[in-house]
Amino acid sequence: MSDLYQNLVSLLGAGKVSSSAEDITTYSIDRWNASAPPEVVVFAESTADVSATLKYAHEHDIPVYGRSGGSGYTGGCVPVNGGIALALERMDKILEINPRDGIARAQPGVITKTLADTVREHGWYYPPDPASLKECGIGGNVATNAGGPRCLKYGVTRSYILGLEVVLADGSIMHTGGRCHKNKTGFDLVGLFCGSEGMLGIITEVTVRIIPHPQTRAMLGVAFADFTAAAAAVNAILDSGVLPSALEITDAFTLEAARDYLGEDKLPPGDAYLIVEIDGQLDTVASEIQSLKSFIEGLGALRIDLAPDEDACEEIWQLRRDFSYGLRNTGMTKLNEDIVVPRSKLVQLVEYCQQIEADTGIPVACFGHAGDGNIHTNLMVGDYDDPKTKQSADKAVDQLFQWVLANDGAITGEHGIGLAKKKWAQQALGETSYLLHQRIKNELDPKGILNPGKFL
Amino acid sequence: MSDLYQNLVSLLGAGKVSSSAEDITTYSIDRWNASAPPEVVVFAESTADVSATLKYAHEHDIPVYGRSGGSGYTGGCVPVNGGIALALERMDKILEINPRDGIARAQPGVITKTLADTVREHGWYYPPDPASLKECGIGGNVATNAGGPRCLKYGVTRSYILGLEVVLADGSIMHTGGRCHKNKTGFDLVGLFCGSEGMLGIITEVTVRIIPHPQTRAMLGVAFADFTAAAAAVNAILDSGVLPSALEITDAFTLEAARDYLGEDKLPPGDAYLIVEIDGQLDTVASEIQSLKSFIEGLGALRIDLAPDEDACEEIWQLRRDFSYGLRNTGMTKLNEDIVVPRSKLVQLVEYCQQIEADTGIPVACFGHAGDGNIHTNLMVGDYDDPKTKQSADKAVDQLFQWVLANDGAITGEHGIGLAKKKWAQQALGETSYLLHQRIKNELDPKGILNPGKFL
Repeated sequence: MSDLYQNLVSLLGAGKVSSSAEDITTYSIDRWNASAPPEVVVFAESTADVSATLKYAHEHDIPVYGRSGGSGYTGGCVPVNGGIALALERMDKILEINPRDGIARAQPGVITKTLADTVREHGWYYPPDPASLKECGIGGNVATNAGGPRCLKYGVTRSYILGLEVVLADGSIMHTGGRCHKNKTGFDLVGLFCGSEGMLGIITEVTVRIIPHPQTRAMLGVAFADFTAAAAAVNAILDSGVLPSALEITDAFTLEAARDYLGEDKLPPGDAYLIVEIDGQLDTVASEIQSLKSFIEGLGALRIDLAPDEDACEEIWQLRRDFSYGLRNTGMTKLNEDIVVPRSKLVQLVEYCQQIEADTGIPVACFGHAGDGNIHTNLMVGDYDDPKTKQSADKAVDQLFQWVLANDGAITGEHGIGLAKKKWAQQALGETSYLLHQRIKNELDPKGILNPGKFL
Repeated sequence: MSDLYQNLVSLLGAGKVSSSAEDITTYSIDRWNASAPPEVVVFAESTADVSATLKYAHEHDIPVYGRSGGSGYTGGCVPVNGGIALALERMDKILEINPRDGIARAQPGVITKTLADTVREHGWYYPPDPASLKECGIGGNVATNAGGPRCLKYGVTRSYILGLEVVLADGSIMHTGGRCHKNKTGFDLVGLFCGSEGMLGIITEVTVRIIPHPQTRAMLGVAFADFTAAAAAVNAILDSGVLPSALEITDAFTLEAARDYLGEDKLPPGDAYLIVEIDGQLDTVASEIQSLKSFIEGLGALRIDLAPDEDACEEIWQLRRDFSYGLRNTGMTKLNEDIVVPRSKLVQLVEYCQQIEADTGIPVACFGHAGDGNIHTNLMVGDYDDPKTKQSADKAVDQLFQWVLANDGAITGEHGIGLAKKKWAQQALGETSYLLHQRIKNELDPKGILNPGKFL
């Protein structure tokens, strides 16, 4: 066993440190394609454990890679420089659910769905709903400022974080924000750590804002002849003064893959599909969804399926999830990019993706959050292990990102930079902002032990 | 004329620099009681002007105090170390209103109400509504992360800022964020500058998110026998799954002052008053407000006034504004503190304020944003110019803030630290956070030229 392992065992106890082959393998990856082994895995059980680990790592210049659920899509927690994988999954306690104060407190390893479900049992609501809801930890949600379909109406993770306990690079423990719904005391350090991808500190406790749970919801699944008609409907709905709790769009390639996967009869007709969810009060949502249906009928919909209650909504959401499985079912490698464009450019984006297919032979399946322009753009690659195909695919991603940046878009809306988008970070941020990022990083982590090897 | 004046005239042109007695007086203050004269006032007309001014100031170690509307309540822009008052009021152009992208772009001197009204003319909505709406600049709103009644449902200014152009201490121009509704590229620098009170950079352009404007709204004005009953109603409403667009509470002292000011018959009965506003779709808000009225009748309301449409709502909002005038009409000095408590402690706060009155003879009028615990706590002081009274009042504020901090509250929810709360900042932030504030400040502004003399 290495000195590092032995020293950490002395510091924390044998039960919290591992260098078993199995653990090393597990903590080498997230859901992206990069892999690099840590020297040891620390399973922190308390803030004190995290603090002791960082203090030690700081003194001895050892890289530390924080990780809660490990369900990221960018290699954000992959320990590219070895050192310590700091697993937070044992810190999985919900510390408080308090509707009277409108807050919940949780350790970073609490699974987001568990938190949301427990809040719901109290009749309240924690809205952020990343696709990895059932596997991701709330700490990782904070570290990446996670989004999801409902963020159109309700805002991303940042909008719900009131307070944080953070262990800084040298092991000192900082509390910032608190349990108040408004707080203008000092700079927005909560915001600075929210989305910092483990590069500025390790989050050890999260206080989230919870809100009254809408009494009910309802949905429309709307088939359109083409993407342009569906995108026009997105604008028309928003212009009418309705802010849906979700507004999701799907393109022709994705629908075709889903037809192959589920069968023609399970899917709506047309080359584009729009999901519109609203929520609100029991006695009015039923009439509101009918009004919305009439309105959308006037926009040239081919077919509209109405889901009047939560169970029916879940069926439409299941269809939305099946779109992902349909794409996987093609047997192709799905390079899932979470780019964002200004909403007016949705149609241009899809047209540009068709151009990429024409240029490279790689189809691009687009679906996702139409309301905020955050479209999951999936490059469907035949054999990603084939070096020539890989090169061609990587070039196509380059081409897409250049177009996105040239069109006032963002290269990531939800997943973060991590390793996956490292090479574009500097261009995307611009020189002055990138330099400022470096200065802040150097000030907070002068030895560069926190998640080194990533975008700074 | 001083060298500084002459040099700035050479740099910017005579029309943009003033050291007239009138301008020096105007730019010595905001709405708080501190006053300190700048040496010169610069009226920037462009980002280039701001950049040139900061570059010059940075080279020559001259303090710079940014200011848009000057309507702050904390002395935040008061030039305590002299130097340059950097007025941004001439940078007052709305650069873009774009519902297709869901954004608006504005220079920092645009009055917030002008921005909101112009967005509304396009049928869209910019929700943040600080009380100084008609006078404050959007740049100052960003610098203080301004709030308002609607922030309960819609979130504070930060929730609407997508992109910023910021001039850094050395005059370099940084763009951060952009026009996308989601953006996870790098750290949340937008958040770091939002609420930084002119201490990290000068904001020269703001891109805000706009949302569909709710089709209509309706309100209830509800009289209760006492504050405890009104506070219980706040919890009951939220527990029922309704998230009002505003939920405002008023205490007995404030009501009594308003009765003196407006006449007994203009005011509702009882010792507490609750305002509940909801918004939504035209064909359902009417029934929703009726349901809510029935629900609140069951909570022991003395009287409920129903405002069914926007005009009627404005009448109730006017009454809310008259509460402020009623307090001013007492002839007393109103020390307006914007403290926040966890919502469950609303009643304890009011009881503690009664204790302060018993201890010091200074009545405390409480009204404000009950939904998020952000209560404007007004110490009503007879003769603030009398040294003994002032001492006693300052001691009472001390006492209040100590109680707030001991009860997990925040010393400021909307106004910021500025000078007014400078002496409590370190305790409120805690040692580790305060040190980190200092390190970030020193890194971004090593010469300390940006708003010096404030809380760091």
